Amino acid sequence: MDTTFRTEHDFLGEKEIPNSVYYGVQTLRALENFNITGITNASEPLFIVAFAYVKKAAAMANRDLGVLDPTIAEAIMFACDELIAGKYRDQFVTDLIQGGAGTSVNMNANEVIANIGLEYLGHQKGQYTFLHPNNHVNCSQSTNDTYPTAIMMALHLKVDVYLQALVALQESFLKKAEEFKNVLKMGRTQLQDAVPMTLGQEFQGFATTLGDDIKHLREAQSKLTECNMGATAIGTSINAPEGYPELCTKYLAQITKLPITLAPDLVEATSDMGAYVLVSAMLKRSAIKISKICNDLRLLSSGPRTGLNEIKLPPMQPGSSIMPGKVNPVIPEVVNQTAFYVVGADVTITMAAEAGQLQLNVMEPVIAFSLFTSMNYMINAINTLRLKCIDGIEANVEVCREEVMRSISIVTALNPILGYETSASIAKEALATGKSIHAIVVQERGLITQEKWDEIYSFENMVNPVFINV
Amino acid sequence: MDTTFRTEHDFLGEKEIPNSVYYGVQTLRALENFNITGITNASEPLFIVAFAYVKKAAAMANRDLGVLDPTIAEAIMFACDELIAGKYRDQFVTDLIQGGAGTSVNMNANEVIANIGLEYLGHQKGQYTFLHPNNHVNCSQSTNDTYPTAIMMALHLKVDVYLQALVALQESFLKKAEEFKNVLKMGRTQLQDAVPMTLGQEFQGFATTLGDDIKHLREAQSKLTECNMGATAIGTSINAPEGYPELCTKYLAQITKLPITLAPDLVEATSDMGAYVLVSAMLKRSAIKISKICNDLRLLSSGPRTGLNEIKLPPMQPGSSIMPGKVNPVIPEVVNQTAFYVVGADVTITMAAEAGQLQLNVMEPVIAFSLFTSMNYMINAINTLRLKCIDGIEANVEVCREEVMRSISIVTALNPILGYETSASIAKEALATGKSIHAIVVQERGLITQEKWDEIYSFENMVNPVFINV
Amino acid sequence: MDTTFRTEHDFLGEKEIPNSVYYGVQTLRALENFNITGITNASEPLFIVAFAYVKKAAAMANRDLGVLDPTIAEAIMFACDELIAGKYRDQFVTDLIQGGAGTSVNMNANEVIANIGLEYLGHQKGQYTFLHPNNHVNCSQSTNDTYPTAIMMALHLKVDVYLQALVALQESFLKKAEEFKNVLKMGRTQLQDAVPMTLGQEFQGFATTLGDDIKHLREAQSKLTECNMGATAIGTSINAPEGYPELCTKYLAQITKLPITLAPDLVEATSDMGAYVLVSAMLKRSAIKISKICNDLRLLSSGPRTGLNEIKLPPMQPGSSIMPGKVNPVIPEVVNQTAFYVVGADVTITMAAEAGQLQLNVMEPVIAFSLFTSMNYMINAINTLRLKCIDGIEANVEVCREEVMRSISIVTALNPILGYETSASIAKEALATGKSIHAIVVQERGLITQEKWDEIYSFENMVNPVFINV
Amino acid sequence: MDTTFRTEHDFLGEKEIPNSVYYGVQTLRALENFNITGITNASEPLFIVAFAYVKKAAAMANRDLGVLDPTIAEAIMFACDELIAGKYRDQFVTDLIQGGAGTSVNMNANEVIANIGLEYLGHQKGQYTFLHPNNHVNCSQSTNDTYPTAIMMALHLKVDVYLQALVALQESFLKKAEEFKNVLKMGRTQLQDAVPMTLGQEFQGFATTLGDDIKHLREAQSKLTECNMGATAIGTSINAPEGYPELCTKYLAQITKLPITLAPDLVEATSDMGAYVLVSAMLKRSAIKISKICNDLRLLSSGPRTGLNEIKLPPMQPGSSIMPGKVNPVIPEVVNQTAFYVVGADVTITMAAEAGQLQLNVMEPVIAFSLFTSMNYMINAINTLRLKCIDGIEANVEVCREEVMRSISIVTALNPILGYETSASIAKEALATGKSIHAIVVQERGLITQEKWDEIYSFENMVNPVFINV
Repeated sequence: MDTTFRTEHDFLGEKEIPNSVYYGVQTLRALENFNITGITNASEPLFIVAFAYVKKAAAMANRDLGVLDPTIAEAIMFACDELIAGKYRDQFVTDLIQGGAGTSVNMNANEVIANIGLEYLGHQKGQYTFLHPNNHVNCSQSTNDTYPTAIMMALHLKVDVYLQALVALQESFLKKAEEFKNVLKMGRTQLQDAVPMTLGQEFQGFATTLGDDIKHLREAQSKLTECNMGATAIGTSINAPEGYPELCTKYLAQITKLPITLAPDLVEATSDMGAYVLVSAMLKRSAIKISKICNDLRLLSSGPRTGLNEIKLPPMQPGSSIMPGKVNPVIPEVVNQTAFYVVGADVTITMAAEAGQLQLNVMEPVIAFSLFTSMNYMINAINTLRLKCIDGIEANVEVCREEVMRSISIVTALNPILGYETSASIAKEALATGKSIHAIVVQERGLITQEKWDEIYSFENMVNPVFINV
Repeated sequence: MDTTFRTEHDFLGEKEIPNSVYYGVQTLRALENFNITGITNASEPLFIVAFAYVKKAAAMANRDLGVLDPTIAEAIMFACDELIAGKYRDQFVTDLIQGGAGTSVNMNANEVIANIGLEYLGHQKGQYTFLHPNNHVNCSQSTNDTYPTAIMMALHLKVDVYLQALVALQESFLKKAEEFKNVLKMGRTQLQDAVPMTLGQEFQGFATTLGDDIKHLREAQSKLTECNMGATAIGTSINAPEGYPELCTKYLAQITKLPITLAPDLVEATSDMGAYVLVSAMLKRSAIKISKICNDLRLLSSGPRTGLNEIKLPPMQPGSSIMPGKVNPVIPEVVNQTAFYVVGADVTITMAAEAGQLQLNVMEPVIAFSLFTSMNYMINAINTLRLKCIDGIEANVEVCREEVMRSISIVTALNPILGYETSASIAKEALATGKSIHAIVVQERGLITQEKWDEIYSFENMVNPVFINV
Repeated sequence: MDTTFRTEHDFLGEKEIPNSVYYGVQTLRALENFNITGITNASEPLFIVAFAYVKKAAAMANRDLGVLDPTIAEAIMFACDELIAGKYRDQFVTDLIQGGAGTSVNMNANEVIANIGLEYLGHQKGQYTFLHPNNHVNCSQSTNDTYPTAIMMALHLKVDVYLQALVALQESFLKKAEEFKNVLKMGRTQLQDAVPMTLGQEFQGFATTLGDDIKHLREAQSKLTECNMGATAIGTSINAPEGYPELCTKYLAQITKLPITLAPDLVEATSDMGAYVLVSAMLKRSAIKISKICNDLRLLSSGPRTGLNEIKLPPMQPGSSIMPGKVNPVIPEVVNQTAFYVVGADVTITMAAEAGQLQLNVMEPVIAFSLFTSMNYMINAINTLRLKCIDGIEANVEVCREEVMRSISIVTALNPILGYETSASIAKEALATGKSIHAIVVQERGLITQEKWDEIYSFENMVNPVFINV
Repeated sequence: MDTTFRTEHDFLGEKEIPNSVYYGVQTLRALENFNITGITNASEPLFIVAFAYVKKAAAMANRDLGVLDPTIAEAIMFACDELIAGKYRDQFVTDLIQGGAGTSVNMNANEVIANIGLEYLGHQKGQYTFLHPNNHVNCSQSTNDTYPTAIMMALHLKVDVYLQALVALQESFLKKAEEFKNVLKMGRTQLQDAVPMTLGQEFQGFATTLGDDIKHLREAQSKLTECNMGATAIGTSINAPEGYPELCTKYLAQITKLPITLAPDLVEATSDMGAYVLVSAMLKRSAIKISKICNDLRLLSSGPRTGLNEIKLPPMQPGSSIMPGKVNPVIPEVVNQTAFYVVGADVTITMAAEAGQLQLNVMEPVIAFSLFTSMNYMINAINTLRLKCIDGIEANVEVCREEVMRSISIVTALNPILGYETSASIAKEALATGKSIHAIVVQERGLITQEKWDEIYSFENMVNPVFINV
């Protein structure tokens, strides 16, 4: 390995840079300045790819508009293609949480691209007179337009991965809904026995609610298409040639095949965090729904002997270091915890979005960090939930069926015939004596015949109750 | 006033009810049980109106389907119309935060409607054999479909009021944008001097960002149209006659003139809080944007002598009990605080939504409470902001203009001509010596001519910079 | 009633004030400016009392130090005593959430006290030359020291009320712990059957955990004793006579009988929100613990036929408008929701505390609002929980006992004798076949004798297991 | 490297384990089950050390009480000492966020210790008959006592590191307070000019407020000493020999030299999250205070030409990819963002703590994760802030002094002499005309003499105002 150094400088002074690396002096300063999470931009491949798209589109627009020599533009485009192909990822070394509103990661990209481009042109790393990180790679750009644009595109791409996981989970629930469609069980409201339903209806409900989230996330994703390229420093397009914002946007849409458009108000777009707040909200919405589903799964599988025990989750690991044979719902548990992380991250994002000042929101890095980690964790959690839990769930059919007939609240079905108050008195007697509803209604009080009873309490009528008058 | 009492009973026993009130025994129990906030459902007129719509539509559907005697249905409809007209509001006495998933407010409505209806039919309050809160007013219904449907509709109507406030605020900003379009000032990023812009562009940005929220809130509102009427207890439609869900929904849409439709999966719809989470998220999004704007207004009006002092907010009250002549930005301050309330309420709603279990979310009342109060407070805050602050803002034109020419960062405009590094060295010299950029560039170093300078630093070019090569 | 008006002025101009009211021009401006929550300072009696203490102590110190005429001081003290006695409360009309960092409520106090004092001196309301809201009542003071000091003292007093509620709740749990000390039941971890315990131990745990909160709240309360009286505007004591901070603090401690001391760094104390953040944190801590307890109560009382059904909560109201005889855990439910409110309020407080700038935190009103409402709601919730739920809980002794012997995980007690792996194989067989542990261990495999079994599974050994070797 | 495999089994079946690793079958299952964050327990050295202490103390107690063969105990103790010395850290491979309430990390420790011990005893990895992860290493223990105890101790140790950072930061502020003690400047409330103070007083305030946090964190740390060793599964000490809880605790205190005591109520201690909630609250409290300080630093250093410009932060990196010479407050910015992370994490912890059920809180891993990451990030942020910002701050003495005399609000000092209303009229005139207070008071109106003016506006009197009567 090359162990030599080159000297680079910026207006704060000179620094020795290992010749083996493609980043330069400003990245090195960022490395020294920001050591918070240990999680670098390299951990977000989609973000680096998005940044490369941005730099490539900018180079193409600059070339067309005559502000960048075609040879230099070509070298930049070559470097960007290398990054898009996944190379040099380890050169993106700055911490995801950083000061400077993203300047360090933008300069990291500028420097890496410049040095790849320099080598492509036959020069040595650091010979920036031939291809300069600021003057050429960053030409007509600012951190304040490239960084938000790259985040926006990375999120757009990432939502695809999230949606893929969510759709697969929904399909798993649908399959179980079909499998359990004849499993009669008690519905519960407020944890108290309510009226019968099928386990299939319950799982169908899980699928339906996720379907709603899928729809909303797609809508949120469709908002992740407005870029502010050409805004440069604060949205006034200072230092960008005429026509550049539109042309750069056109190229960006073209090379990414995403429906990217130019924000109508570049001043607003440069400081606005609305799109991220929206994505975080939709992400949180799906996370708390999935958490609610996991709570239900843990309740329904509670027991085995002293809980509800309606379903059996696939056993994934011994549940206890002390209680032999214990199996715990470890997969729903880990998903719950991930959802809590997402809720916390949404608060972080909210505070960061509110803290923007004047023409920029300098808290953007922690917003990106929070969205990236939230999405990564949730994608992992959703896939884990599907593969290691939902797909293997079995119904305890007998347990489910028995509890229905044992219940008191099936008396509800008699309301239209006996009226609410008589039904209530029957319920009260059942509760006090331990008798079944059938015993009181048919055998003791003779309020309805056995035939009527059978009609009302048939499987078909329990699941899709027909309104029955006397 | 009638000071006599009547006796009512439910299955827990008897209670004496003042004859002067229209509510009954179950409302009285709720009154005794829930004393948390002191804020009653009566404080939300739109909610009571929405509940009356629900009960009226149900009565109409029940009548058509033959499960409710037309005379009784007519009495119920009469009572509902009275409520819609704003009467009997003080009879809705239960605390907004209540246990029982809304049963108490549903029974409150059932009892009040029954007693109004009884009087309409020539009976006395409490003679429920003729018109019963459960058997008749609540016929084919459950708290679990009526309560969420009423909340949903109340929110739908309330979003209209919120949007009205937001649109008016946006218009105020637009007017100021026009008024300030020729006021040149420094833009700032990271609180550091950046490049010039106009005050008009800044206020236009405020208008644009609110426009985005208006769009998103309208979209969220359009989701507040799915009802679960006919779901009854848990979504299986137990005790509702065939065709009731559809017919009731049809009537609901007809009498409210809202585009209400029936949820496709009633089991899911009965426990799902997704729509509320969405509304809360959009509400929060607009609140933190407005808070950011207020932060900016406070910064821009800081001083008067030792701050930015670019704008002057209308003085609303003496600012200090000790410092004479001090005027503070009290209106933006109160808006900031309201926004923080909304962020907190969103966390409350998130926890409540996550805490749903099985076939119901029993935490729905605190969700309704949080959304109602958040919207009320924000509507007040937004209107206050517009009328008592934005409309009266004046620009300190001279202060704004002077600071531009005094600034160092206007050197940015020379980048395309001199290159980033030379510009940086000029900036460094200006900072160290206190000299102006003009002095260094034109007078001392002679890097560009006075004509070129005038061209670059003309008002027109500062605001809409044209790309200038040497 | 007096329907005449008097004219008052401040440096923004003149206003007509109804002669019937004791507040003046600045309060009237605040009334016009701040209409956010509709919840006024009058709703917090302890806060008004605290403000009166502050004003009285200041008058005493000013008198002693010769900056206030003794007659005027006496009039102020008289007025303060009236307020402390609970009179004129309705004169505190400003919204709890207000801009101006509390200036409006301070001026509200200054004006009301001035006018009460004027009448006491034989003058008319508004004749401020004799007793002036700023020059006399507010003498040596600023909003920035009086307002935080009053909030601090109000919170101190309010924590007493909160602690009273908490201690009473703890005692209720202790009584139940004693009552249930012989009720054997299954313990559960991760909702899965674990090992036996008593219901008494479970309720003792609730009492213990609250005891911890009581201790922490007392500690937090003891931090609510540092005042910044004499800091005046920003902590430099401008306009306060020498010795005033110490003397005023001495008087404050004396008349309130609270251990109030002077903050050592008045500049810091004037902008610091640390004490409120601490109180909010401790409040939240107790709220989420109580919420966890309520979750447990709802789980333990689930059923009655298809849930755990170990305990019976006192029935408070019919549980359903459609399901006869249904009784729901409405009291724990309303407590859960109140706890969620407190968590949201803590986020509001956090954002407000973070938003302080330079020498003041202008967001203090929303902090006070959030703490006051959180404490009020929780006090109500805790008392409701105790009186309407805990005190009436009954154990389903038989249900509890049966489930223990039915369970598989009691095999854990055999670990020390048989080893973890043999025990696990027994558990596995029990789960697969539905057999009891006793059947497999004693009857089929003969691994231990019936005597040994009886010794191990005696009540005494289940509850306080003795380590038994073979 | 050893590329062979051994076969291990648990009651779910067999697994092939690489012979090179020290963990076993249950760790392998956890590895397969939990892939959420990619952040493993190995990333928290203090946590592994704490776990080793726990296992060592348990072995010593078990040995003394005769339930563990001395040779086996010695092997376990040897293994623990290896872990304490920092070896085998890479064997702790489970994800910090995991289901199972920590069972996987406990079994990870049990397995690694067993295999180190086996080799020590001359056996091969996996020959668990000689030294078994459950029967021996986990003897008298459960995940439910060892895991919380290890977290508690790790946090205790980690708070030391946090406090070290905080104390050093406080010292930096104190040094600057001394350095700036003669720098007169304007104080500001509500971003409006207030009254004079020194920059030293401002920095002293920062130091004071951190001192308060240091005190509170020490107190919180002192609560991190209660362990529940011997609680085993649910707090009833099942399977633990008599005297074990006390003896194990004694050994734990002895080998860690921490003041560890046994929780008085083991049932409560096993599910209680109160200590973590407390630590998170105190951590958050310090984070938002530091964030407020960073906001102030960014405000005070704003400019350089069109902001407050009172102080100069050390330049850490070029501030812009487009604006030459721009230097941004990147260090405070990154600290702000870290604080927002901590606030979000506190919400995560709150939700997780509330979600405990019955005898255990299964969400403990995400609580540990959140506390560990929050503390790590904040420690990094605090040290960065100190070294790369505070220590290098310089005052712009001239700027500070000039703004004082330019200000209007210095008129406040004339209140005691001229009265509030006259002072207000002077202020009003100054504001309207642009005149200085001196010009109006001394030159034009002749209200006080030049001598009096000099006395009042002397440096000494500005900073520590003496009460001056006419």
